[in-house]
Amino acid sequence: MADQHNVVAEHRLSLQERLGSDMVLTEASEMLRYCRDWHGDVTSAAVAVLRPRSTAEVAAAVTACRVLGLSIVPQGGNTGLVLGGIPDAPERQVILSLERLNRIRTIDADDFSAVVEAGCILSELKDAIADKGMFFPLALGAQGSCRIGGNVSTNAGGINVLRYGMTRELVLGLEVVLADGTIFEGLSTLRKDNRGIDLKQLFIGAEGTLGIITAVSIKLTPYPDHVATALLALASLDDAITLYRRARRDCCDLMSAFEFMPPLAFDLAREAMPDLPIPIAGDYPAYVLMEISGSGLIDVNDLMERFLEGVMTDGLVVDGTIASSQAQARSLWLIREGMNEGQAKRGSHMRSDVSVPLSKLASFVSDAEAAISQALPDCISVSYGHVGDGNVHLNVLPPTDLLGEARDQVIYKAKTVLNEVVDLYQGSISAEHGIGRLKRADFESRLPDTRRKLLAAVKHAVDPHLLFNPGCQLNLNGIS
Amino acid sequence: MADQHNVVAEHRLSLQERLGSDMVLTEASEMLRYCRDWHGDVTSAAVAVLRPRSTAEVAAAVTACRVLGLSIVPQGGNTGLVLGGIPDAPERQVILSLERLNRIRTIDADDFSAVVEAGCILSELKDAIADKGMFFPLALGAQGSCRIGGNVSTNAGGINVLRYGMTRELVLGLEVVLADGTIFEGLSTLRKDNRGIDLKQLFIGAEGTLGIITAVSIKLTPYPDHVATALLALASLDDAITLYRRARRDCCDLMSAFEFMPPLAFDLAREAMPDLPIPIAGDYPAYVLMEISGSGLIDVNDLMERFLEGVMTDGLVVDGTIASSQAQARSLWLIREGMNEGQAKRGSHMRSDVSVPLSKLASFVSDAEAAISQALPDCISVSYGHVGDGNVHLNVLPPTDLLGEARDQVIYKAKTVLNEVVDLYQGSISAEHGIGRLKRADFESRLPDTRRKLLAAVKHAVDPHLLFNPGCQLNLNGIS
Repeated sequence: MADQHNVVAEHRLSLQERLGSDMVLTEASEMLRYCRDWHGDVTSAAVAVLRPRSTAEVAAAVTACRVLGLSIVPQGGNTGLVLGGIPDAPERQVILSLERLNRIRTIDADDFSAVVEAGCILSELKDAIADKGMFFPLALGAQGSCRIGGNVSTNAGGINVLRYGMTRELVLGLEVVLADGTIFEGLSTLRKDNRGIDLKQLFIGAEGTLGIITAVSIKLTPYPDHVATALLALASLDDAITLYRRARRDCCDLMSAFEFMPPLAFDLAREAMPDLPIPIAGDYPAYVLMEISGSGLIDVNDLMERFLEGVMTDGLVVDGTIASSQAQARSLWLIREGMNEGQAKRGSHMRSDVSVPLSKLASFVSDAEAAISQALPDCISVSYGHVGDGNVHLNVLPPTDLLGEARDQVIYKAKTVLNEVVDLYQGSISAEHGIGRLKRADFESRLPDTRRKLLAAVKHAVDPHLLFNPGCQLNLNGIS
Repeated sequence: MADQHNVVAEHRLSLQERLGSDMVLTEASEMLRYCRDWHGDVTSAAVAVLRPRSTAEVAAAVTACRVLGLSIVPQGGNTGLVLGGIPDAPERQVILSLERLNRIRTIDADDFSAVVEAGCILSELKDAIADKGMFFPLALGAQGSCRIGGNVSTNAGGINVLRYGMTRELVLGLEVVLADGTIFEGLSTLRKDNRGIDLKQLFIGAEGTLGIITAVSIKLTPYPDHVATALLALASLDDAITLYRRARRDCCDLMSAFEFMPPLAFDLAREAMPDLPIPIAGDYPAYVLMEISGSGLIDVNDLMERFLEGVMTDGLVVDGTIASSQAQARSLWLIREGMNEGQAKRGSHMRSDVSVPLSKLASFVSDAEAAISQALPDCISVSYGHVGDGNVHLNVLPPTDLLGEARDQVIYKAKTVLNEVVDLYQGSISAEHGIGRLKRADFESRLPDTRRKLLAAVKHAVDPHLLFNPGCQLNLNGIS
């Protein structure tokens, strides 16, 4: 153990000598916020935290680590939900934080594109783009803290996926530092470029296992000045999915969000925000928060009104309210956000992020909630989310007075029961959060042999020394 | 030479014995249509043409070829424009045609998805999907002959890219036969699935160099019942790009096509279709064929009228006509299609498919046409295409009486001059057609070393024996 400490101390000294002390944090107190995950469930440690300010400094850091035999855990805003950015071998891993590599290089409204460094905070980026009359559609709860490099590395989803796609579909080009310290220079802003195999796709969603994304060129669209937001009450999740299908046809590509919430959403939101106004009276079995948006000549309010008139006449929507101001729209979205905070207030719980084919979603949620209720009768299931994408967050809240290891066991059991139902429906155990370290075992146990071999072959081809994020997504060397 | 013939004859016999004579064509007359490219510019040969009817038969064919030391050129509808599906080493390559693997496995309107085999002809697929009220947006000139596996392998573009993206964005999952004969089973219809590195992305646009795509699951959208089509006259290409930007804002995501044409388009179209009505009088410097489409409650005619009122008031559009019937819309599109046929009637010519950043497109076309005019004063440049994507087909027509080798030299010279201007603008020499064998040298000479190494590493990792389409995209073994 003493030897191991000496080795770590020597590595720290070497890193400081090679990279300069400004780039290298080694004090436990300074490193803490990088070593603890977003939910605060796990606190790890690292040999050092490296904080380069330029792509060249990232390349130097990669070379230094390779020479020293240290592996690298890349980290953006540290808002990941699956421990993809937290070391699991603190004595031989460094965290490489992109937070100081955070310039916006260009925003070109005429080109509908921007080039930004990996460390840009998503909301700051969106604001700077909005100042030019343009819009970057990626929108998720953590946008005030997450960074674009992390969004790309995890192929982040969020509330606007049904219209604009996952992060992958918003990326035009990447700059990536590779394992040999060379730079993959692919920051094109071309909308179409079909020159052979599209290598950048490999790094999107790789969670930092193949290289370090240092900058991204992204697609922009005109800013949607006109937004219509409605909260709708329905008889069931099944009806919500019927409503989604109809909205896809009636409102076409102008629908930008369609979020499902159960009645419990309001209780949970109120627990987090006691003064939150709840604009629908009564207690209905299902709710949908729906948004239509557009720019220029598009009249989204008229469209929303005509749509609701039709679906209320047909009895598909039983009650509803359209926000009459931006402030009211904001307070409708606060219900959706507050329900997350409310769950956190009830203590640690089983969070999930699963998807199934859209046509099976209602039956899946019904089966999964029944299975959980049977296995864990004292727990509460709460299912909500981006149902238009077939993606539901089916969370399980243990009784508030259940604590410690007993609580952890219930959470583990809930996950196991849920995943069994996901498998029956040929669904995904990770619709948007990724694999990281948290879901690795569940991922690997479901991985067909052909796919595993191909993943391993690609990893070895691109990162032959397994330098980047070992233990994330796959356990390839057996020692992570 | 006699020996070589014997080897080929033995290989043919072995293939027939292993795979059955129904799967294996070896007669030159039967193989001809597979060995000649779409334009008829090149006629090659092959050891055999294999025509499997199932994924299992594809796997058997792959294994047989690997054992015999033959490499495989996969082929869909043989409509490619860059010789990606035509052998360049006839005595050691077989063509594997997917044309008999052409079932539609499922169309699920409730799921907005379909699963189809690689050999499905695109237009047949679109029709079958339309019968269910759904829409598959991929639309290109060759759609009556091209096959979906080829569309995916080449990441095909077409006229609807500005709204729906390239083929890559329409793919939910793939089934691929790999070099070892195993099957990558990834025919998911999940809209969101973020389980690690997305391996299917590697095969999209790989032009058959990494595996053989045997089936595809695709995204569908509701059928756009309402379509407004307009032909607009403008003062310049510059104005056309200004118009595009305004249309992106005013018409939002409802614009589905925006094609630029020069005045010469009408002459060319009339040369191919003498009776084609030309609905705009006068001779303007630039034309745009624009389409807005939607389903359900969207009134596209009203939107088009209000849009045109604004841009004509502002003088951006100087004349225009909105199609008043489907037949009239069809005849507007015939101008666009006819101009391609008209070019073909003027004899072989330099076809290009380049892209530059949108904001530089007008200046690029001006510079490129000037450079060509200076280098080749007797030639005519014709620039048209998907300018909203920054993608222009800048073709060069030699004088009709220039024939044979002299004509080929002019075509080569035109390509060289054009590509030099593309390089100045940091553009792409292939916006949508791919690399194949035709553009390989131009691709490789522009390939940064980092990217080349990564491409080679991935190729060797996925196809270690260089079984698939050697000589396409990259020359890796020096013998292709």
